Amino acid sequence: MYKAYAAQSAGQPLVAVERELPALKQDQVVIDVKYCGVCHSDISMLENEWGLTQFPLVPGHEVFGVISSVGKNVHNLKVGQEVGLGWNSDYCHTCSSCMGGDHNLCDSAEITMLGRDGGFAEKVVANASAVMPIPASLDPQSVGPLLCAGITVFNPLVQFDIKPTDKVAVIGIGGLGHLAIQFMKAWGCEVTAFTSSEEKKKEAMEFGASGTINSRDPEDIAKAANRFDYIISTVSAKLDWNLYLSTLKAKGRLHFVGATTEPLDISVMPMIFGQKTISASPVGSPANIEKMLAFAAHHDIKPAIELFKFDDINDAIERVKSGKARYRVVLER
Amino acid sequence: MYKAYAAQSAGQPLVAVERELPALKQDQVVIDVKYCGVCHSDISMLENEWGLTQFPLVPGHEVFGVISSVGKNVHNLKVGQEVGLGWNSDYCHTCSSCMGGDHNLCDSAEITMLGRDGGFAEKVVANASAVMPIPASLDPQSVGPLLCAGITVFNPLVQFDIKPTDKVAVIGIGGLGHLAIQFMKAWGCEVTAFTSSEEKKKEAMEFGASGTINSRDPEDIAKAANRFDYIISTVSAKLDWNLYLSTLKAKGRLHFVGATTEPLDISVMPMIFGQKTISASPVGSPANIEKMLAFAAHHDIKPAIELFKFDDINDAIERVKSGKARYRVVLER
Repeated sequence: MYKAYAAQSAGQPLVAVERELPALKQDQVVIDVKYCGVCHSDISMLENEWGLTQFPLVPGHEVFGVISSVGKNVHNLKVGQEVGLGWNSDYCHTCSSCMGGDHNLCDSAEITMLGRDGGFAEKVVANASAVMPIPASLDPQSVGPLLCAGITVFNPLVQFDIKPTDKVAVIGIGGLGHLAIQFMKAWGCEVTAFTSSEEKKKEAMEFGASGTINSRDPEDIAKAANRFDYIISTVSAKLDWNLYLSTLKAKGRLHFVGATTEPLDISVMPMIFGQKTISASPVGSPANIEKMLAFAAHHDIKPAIELFKFDDINDAIERVKSGKARYRVVLER
Repeated sequence: MYKAYAAQSAGQPLVAVERELPALKQDQVVIDVKYCGVCHSDISMLENEWGLTQFPLVPGHEVFGVISSVGKNVHNLKVGQEVGLGWNSDYCHTCSSCMGGDHNLCDSAEITMLGRDGGFAEKVVANASAVMPIPASLDPQSVGPLLCAGITVFNPLVQFDIKPTDKVAVIGIGGLGHLAIQFMKAWGCEVTAFTSSEEKKKEAMEFGASGTINSRDPEDIAKAANRFDYIISTVSAKLDWNLYLSTLKAKGRLHFVGATTEPLDISVMPMIFGQKTISASPVGSPANIEKMLAFAAHHDIKPAIELFKFDDINDAIERVKSGKARYRVVLER
């Protein structure tokens, strides 16, 4: 038996429940959860925004913990090992995405908080292939946010071969954006932060930005015409994307990891003249999560976090909802 | 003195005029025009759709001819040589795009029919850097359309590293699309044609497509879900771009060379889940035009053309406007 925090229906607060571990499959491991980040997508799932949620729901997909049990076919992980678990808990291992190393794009990838309890619990079960060994030098309480927010902003650097000589920018300095600044600075890039918050401008510079632009001031943005090779947008708000495209150099890329819900309404003519690209991506594959963790450890990249006790989980969720967290909320025992 | 066909104002028919050659600059050459293709962008310029046109306008930017004079600093071209000239007639040679080999993205690139007479004339002047030697095995009357329509659909194969193993598709089987099929088949790809014309479906197969999909039938398109690595759109019409995006595999690219004027209204969530890309591009650099010409010569790729005499230039233009040309109109002496 183990304790978990479950919502019984959409929009309901989480309540502590007793749960029984399912029989462990041969390729699975059990992780005793030590810390778990709270991500905005936990809230989207709690509110069933995407129509995917199965109730009762135990959210949580930014897990740091210790392996307490391994299935009989698991040879790469052992009991007592410190590990992490992110958005996905298993993959099909047979589709062309999986066979090509892009497990994160597998249509049958299992979501950590669907069909099983997520990390807002004492224990979580996952396929060994999705469970990441954690470099010893990483701070345990910092690991969770790297496994979702971190990999989401790191992955495109690998996917699109962003160069250290590139001039890059981040739209939105929040849970994802403050990590994007750190990763791209460590990547060698000159980083500019687009934000409308005076307070965050200062903090963006502390995270490693070398300049800021007011994301709500069209004149400020227009001054940056033809400046960037790569822009990553972490926001869900509707912005003037054509204006942001004008800040890209020829061959530049505007990349979306923020789940903006309104259509992008992009004009194609300026894209043609400047050979510009728009792209988007989700989290990363296990191979790239491993790269990300090693890179974060080497460069001492970590999320700014606010810690909450697991028993105060509803307060933690309210904090994330408020948009005031600086910058990531993490639950601890 | 030489004869040219000029429009005096927007929407006026072309009339024969006598023109005097400007003094030849040291890096320029004079080309005696033998053939010139008629492209839809000649018509856009004649009607001043883009607000760029200077009247009187002598259009024409798909030139095949013979060099009749060279400036004193021109050492790579000689009098009597067969050459071609496309959309651009000179580049700044100093900006980062030029210095990086992307002359076609130079902000100061000179347009063949702006500030000088285009190819609807007996003679045209251009900087030697923009004048392309023509492989002897290419049919002279086929060269013009390769220099604009051809390079426009060939260039992205190079820019985005399209693989011979990729499954690709073309939206719109016209002047650009019928060349795109030929180039991509020769590239090794399995090519599908999106077209709404029964007649063009048959012709697309003759150009090398291995299948067709009705571009106006949402059910037919939906059946192709997750099928393509790369789609090139050559149309200016507004289509259901989100539906086309659904026919891309994970990591697939929807690329625009057709100047669709309505915003793309793309939903970002499906792009995120599938790590999909949208991009666009204009014509190519001299280096890639050279590659394209050699590739076309090697694979016997050529436009299907309808020949008109230069003296019937207004009929030729009407034929292009009608949308009935199969597939490219070329003027001959």
